[in-house]
Amino acid sequence: MAKFKLDEVDHQILDMLIENTRTPFTDIAKKLLISAGTVHVRVKKMEEAGIIEGSSLTLDYRKLGYSFIAYVGIYLQNTSQTKFVLQRINEIPYVTVAHITTGKFNIFCKVRAKDTNHAKEIIFMLDDIDGVYRTETMISLEESINDKKRLMHSIFQDM
Amino acid sequence: MAKFKLDEVDHQILDMLIENTRTPFTDIAKKLLISAGTVHVRVKKMEEAGIIEGSSLTLDYRKLGYSFIAYVGIYLQNTSQTKFVLQRINEIPYVTVAHITTGKFNIFCKVRAKDTNHAKEIIFMLDDIDGVYRTETMISLEESINDKKRLMHSIFQDM
Amino acid sequence: MAKFKLDEVDHQILDMLIENTRTPFTDIAKKLLISAGTVHVRVKKMEEAGIIEGSSLTLDYRKLGYSFIAYVGIYLQNTSQTKFVLQRINEIPYVTVAHITTGKFNIFCKVRAKDTNHAKEIIFMLDDIDGVYRTETMISLEESINDKKRLMHSIFQDM
Amino acid sequence: MAKFKLDEVDHQILDMLIENTRTPFTDIAKKLLISAGTVHVRVKKMEEAGIIEGSSLTLDYRKLGYSFIAYVGIYLQNTSQTKFVLQRINEIPYVTVAHITTGKFNIFCKVRAKDTNHAKEIIFMLDDIDGVYRTETMISLEESINDKKRLMHSIFQDM
Amino acid sequence: MAKFKLDEVDHQILDMLIENTRTPFTDIAKKLLISAGTVHVRVKKMEEAGIIEGSSLTLDYRKLGYSFIAYVGIYLQNTSQTKFVLQRINEIPYVTVAHITTGKFNIFCKVRAKDTNHAKEIIFMLDDIDGVYRTETMISLEESINDKKRLMHSIFQDM
Amino acid sequence: MAKFKLDEVDHQILDMLIENTRTPFTDIAKKLLISAGTVHVRVKKMEEAGIIEGSSLTLDYRKLGYSFIAYVGIYLQNTSQTKFVLQRINEIPYVTVAHITTGKFNIFCKVRAKDTNHAKEIIFMLDDIDGVYRTETMISLEESINDKKRLMHSIFQDM
Amino acid sequence: MAKFKLDEVDHQILDMLIENTRTPFTDIAKKLLISAGTVHVRVKKMEEAGIIEGSSLTLDYRKLGYSFIAYVGIYLQNTSQTKFVLQRINEIPYVTVAHITTGKFNIFCKVRAKDTNHAKEIIFMLDDIDGVYRTETMISLEESINDKKRLMHSIFQDM
Amino acid sequence: MAKFKLDEVDHQILDMLIENTRTPFTDIAKKLLISAGTVHVRVKKMEEAGIIEGSSLTLDYRKLGYSFIAYVGIYLQNTSQTKFVLQRINEIPYVTVAHITTGKFNIFCKVRAKDTNHAKEIIFMLDDIDGVYRTETMISLEESINDKKRLMHSIFQDM
Repeated sequence: MAKFKLDEVDHQILDMLIENTRTPFTDIAKKLLISAGTVHVRVKKMEEAGIIEGSSLTLDYRKLGYSFIAYVGIYLQNTSQTKFVLQRINEIPYVTVAHITTGKFNIFCKVRAKDTNHAKEIIFMLDDIDGVYRTETMISLEESINDKKRLMHSIFQDM
Repeated sequence: MAKFKLDEVDHQILDMLIENTRTPFTDIAKKLLISAGTVHVRVKKMEEAGIIEGSSLTLDYRKLGYSFIAYVGIYLQNTSQTKFVLQRINEIPYVTVAHITTGKFNIFCKVRAKDTNHAKEIIFMLDDIDGVYRTETMISLEESINDKKRLMHSIFQDM
Repeated sequence: MAKFKLDEVDHQILDMLIENTRTPFTDIAKKLLISAGTVHVRVKKMEEAGIIEGSSLTLDYRKLGYSFIAYVGIYLQNTSQTKFVLQRINEIPYVTVAHITTGKFNIFCKVRAKDTNHAKEIIFMLDDIDGVYRTETMISLEESINDKKRLMHSIFQDM
Repeated sequence: MAKFKLDEVDHQILDMLIENTRTPFTDIAKKLLISAGTVHVRVKKMEEAGIIEGSSLTLDYRKLGYSFIAYVGIYLQNTSQTKFVLQRINEIPYVTVAHITTGKFNIFCKVRAKDTNHAKEIIFMLDDIDGVYRTETMISLEESINDKKRLMHSIFQDM
Repeated sequence: MAKFKLDEVDHQILDMLIENTRTPFTDIAKKLLISAGTVHVRVKKMEEAGIIEGSSLTLDYRKLGYSFIAYVGIYLQNTSQTKFVLQRINEIPYVTVAHITTGKFNIFCKVRAKDTNHAKEIIFMLDDIDGVYRTETMISLEESINDKKRLMHSIFQDM
Repeated sequence: MAKFKLDEVDHQILDMLIENTRTPFTDIAKKLLISAGTVHVRVKKMEEAGIIEGSSLTLDYRKLGYSFIAYVGIYLQNTSQTKFVLQRINEIPYVTVAHITTGKFNIFCKVRAKDTNHAKEIIFMLDDIDGVYRTETMISLEESINDKKRLMHSIFQDM
Repeated sequence: MAKFKLDEVDHQILDMLIENTRTPFTDIAKKLLISAGTVHVRVKKMEEAGIIEGSSLTLDYRKLGYSFIAYVGIYLQNTSQTKFVLQRINEIPYVTVAHITTGKFNIFCKVRAKDTNHAKEIIFMLDDIDGVYRTETMISLEESINDKKRLMHSIFQDM
Repeated sequence: MAKFKLDEVDHQILDMLIENTRTPFTDIAKKLLISAGTVHVRVKKMEEAGIIEGSSLTLDYRKLGYSFIAYVGIYLQNTSQTKFVLQRINEIPYVTVAHITTGKFNIFCKVRAKDTNHAKEIIFMLDDIDGVYRTETMISLEESINDKKRLMHSIFQDM
């Protein structure tokens, strides 16, 4: 898992794109005193190296009617079913994150739902997947932090 | 918590931006057979309404040397300390998500670290915050799903 | 789930009926300086809107020989059996409350029994329902509060 | 705890009042082929014996904006604080039931709230009571049964 | 479950027999200033009423090579098997006590063994009973109190 | 912990006394074809060696009004308090057995009480001992086995 | 389980070999003022008595690429499978220690792996053994003590 | 954490020493068709690189009177005390292994004791360390596998 070498310029480009992925390359170029072509080449290289996998919008889910967040721990009957169960979980769009974990759960998911009733339906979908033995749910009363930008800046400053 | 009304056009714009936040507005306009100005106005309105909060890059953390993910449950001595503890947690960039939760934990965090040793240091930082009584850690063996796009598309299709 | 609009008069009628469901409408009318007919119409409307679902006696169960209260958490083999199990639970009159819950239990019940031995029989009835995997019981040593009136008054004062 | 002796007539009166506390005594009298005065005397006696403690409305809380139910287990620092803590809990109208229990919790409560956010506030109120060491919350996804009438009929049939 | 009425004389007889079951009836008679025949009659009556079920020696198990005590919680696959499993447990002489319990276990046993290895064999015997799903063991590091006499004296003093 | 050597005769004497501690020595002598004096000497020797610690009655607690059995697990604030806490527990006659244990509890007790309310009082006594941090209670629904005789016979047959 | 009698000379020989198993017998002999032949005879006797079972290198696993340590608790479907499961576990070289245990696990293992991903593979191997019902993993953040020498010295000093 | 490069010869030397640390270098040399001096140089280099940290005897603890093994999980009051507590644990020779762990325990230890009573004393020593909040013990009924050699061979074969 050899790390791709990012230099100071890559780092500054990422630092700006993290804040706003739509920042025009010409603005980045002006700020860093390099050509827009260089910015373009650098971003392309980071995309090809798989460091930049894409970009996404940050939406306010509550304003879209999705104010309910739950974490669901899943127990499997047998871990040989892990891959299959994850494929089935992947068909449920309300599951935004899923991990294979140590500890008491085999799989651990983050679920976004409209309300209590919708959450119940989603939990039932998970419970009904073949190979799922039981689920345990923990409900979020408030999403206090959801911010990858601090980590990203911190990673680039460490390098 | 009245929902902002999104019409079919908004929905199609969001559907395209979700896939690639850098899609030029002229491309969106061409595809939807509307003017680029309309796209601009619609996006602006959704930003002002707080539906679009921003955009962010999706980076491959493993390629950046961060291959270790842990979920840390935090027990507080007293919930009157919740706000203060969250402020202190917010100073640790390796905590990318934090929730106030029901169930046995008071606060539940997602942590990204370089390796076991780095995770230990971060867990110790959390443990050393005043008001934190104990922590319990669950380690991710594999991040199998991390994808908000399926949810976003699903939300817009429901509307 | 649009809320039915209750006005100040409705609120005052409910406030009196909550304390004593048998309060004659003429007494309510006199107190509120309205006609008994108005009281009648208002109550009827609240019944039709489903806000008032009925009325019930508050009995002293201990005096009737039922001094034992237990909460029983039920684990199902599979949540697809939830509806069926709830129907079977519904045939046991000693179960006065049952919820589908998050957390470690699938269904959570309140049970009233005569004594330890009677409780054992009821728990065994629950355990013997097809689809019930295990139960866990928590016994009440004292029912310190059982009072919906404070909540009802509080709801009407908030409105 | 000597039980008050209810005879067949008391039993039939209770059976009718349980279904509708507002049933006129004349209706009951007609059905049981006794005088309305007898009904009146019997009910009075059962009230004086403390068997009938009162009556209450059954309201649809969801229609009143209270669709969120949670069970909260409370750990005390020391059980000598039980009485004091129960008094403080009694000041929170959203707690409709509270028990002193065996098992891991010292006190176990039922809470009705408007939504997730309101539940959070109520849980924080409980957490902030002096002597409360920690709380653990289990959320109801559906109140499937809430019916004392089956029990009451069953009690009277057993007698 | 009507209680047999014990009078002061019964109480004093029991108080003496509890300390030493072999106390001659003549000694008891002398002390209580009654005839030995009366003692005999009273004891007989208490035996016939089932209050005195028998007598047993108190042996020092450690001196007999049994220094290991464990409590074993048993989970059943289904409580309909309770009776059958108890019959099978009853065939294992090392299980001196067994209860049907509330809480997480279905049956809870006390086991006396020679040493760790012997305990392992007994636990395996329990685990191998049909209908036993799992067991959980808690080991005694010291039997600090094992004394029913204080309770018996207390019961007779209360009466 | 050298074991006292019991021979075949001792074994047969114990086997008879276990069944009925009041069996006259002359009866034992006749059955074993030895002199009553020999029985006397042997029993004395076993008492002096501490193998026989005494004898006790087996009473039917339910008939004496004590039908409630609970197991209470005690958590200490610090194990240096173990001795002191055990002394305080020893003052509560309703605690018939107490062990220092491995696993989650520090001390594990068996409690006999009259009923739920009495059990609550006893649990509160335990909770109020200095150094007791928390207690957890498991209630017996039925004492299915309570029999040391099978073990005793088994021990003597093994020797 | 009669203990082999070690005398002072055996003790001193072991004390030196524990520190360095390759210490030449002539060095030991010189230090203890005995002949090398005596050292040889004593070591041979302790090997034949099974006290010395062998010797092993202490390697730095991190330097060999094995920096990940986990403890894995295994639940069996039935303890009659214990022997078979242990044979299968024995085929996985990454499991360096395995115990049959009391408490919630049936078997408890220590696992050494290269990294998180390798640990996942090993845990999956364990999970896939027939008769293994579930596993629970606890990850070591630091191996702070791993030293049998202190115990060995202590044992010989006690003797 | 760059790995020291071991070649085929190093690997074969280690493979032989793992089986018997006292194997004379001349025997190893003969088998590998190299000079004894080369073996010496290679071992020295691996020692200097820290790969070989030393060697130790494998003793049969049961034959030395230590037949009791327990795993003890330790909860700290605050992780800032971790280092101090580990120093204190290090003074107890009966603790042969100690880890800082994720999950519910802060520190997890392996203890070897003579018997139940000795184990109790050691657990009390751990409980009495300042900063130790509670301990939880799991007892080994059988050490079924304790063998690093399989791992070591496996590591060298992988290289």
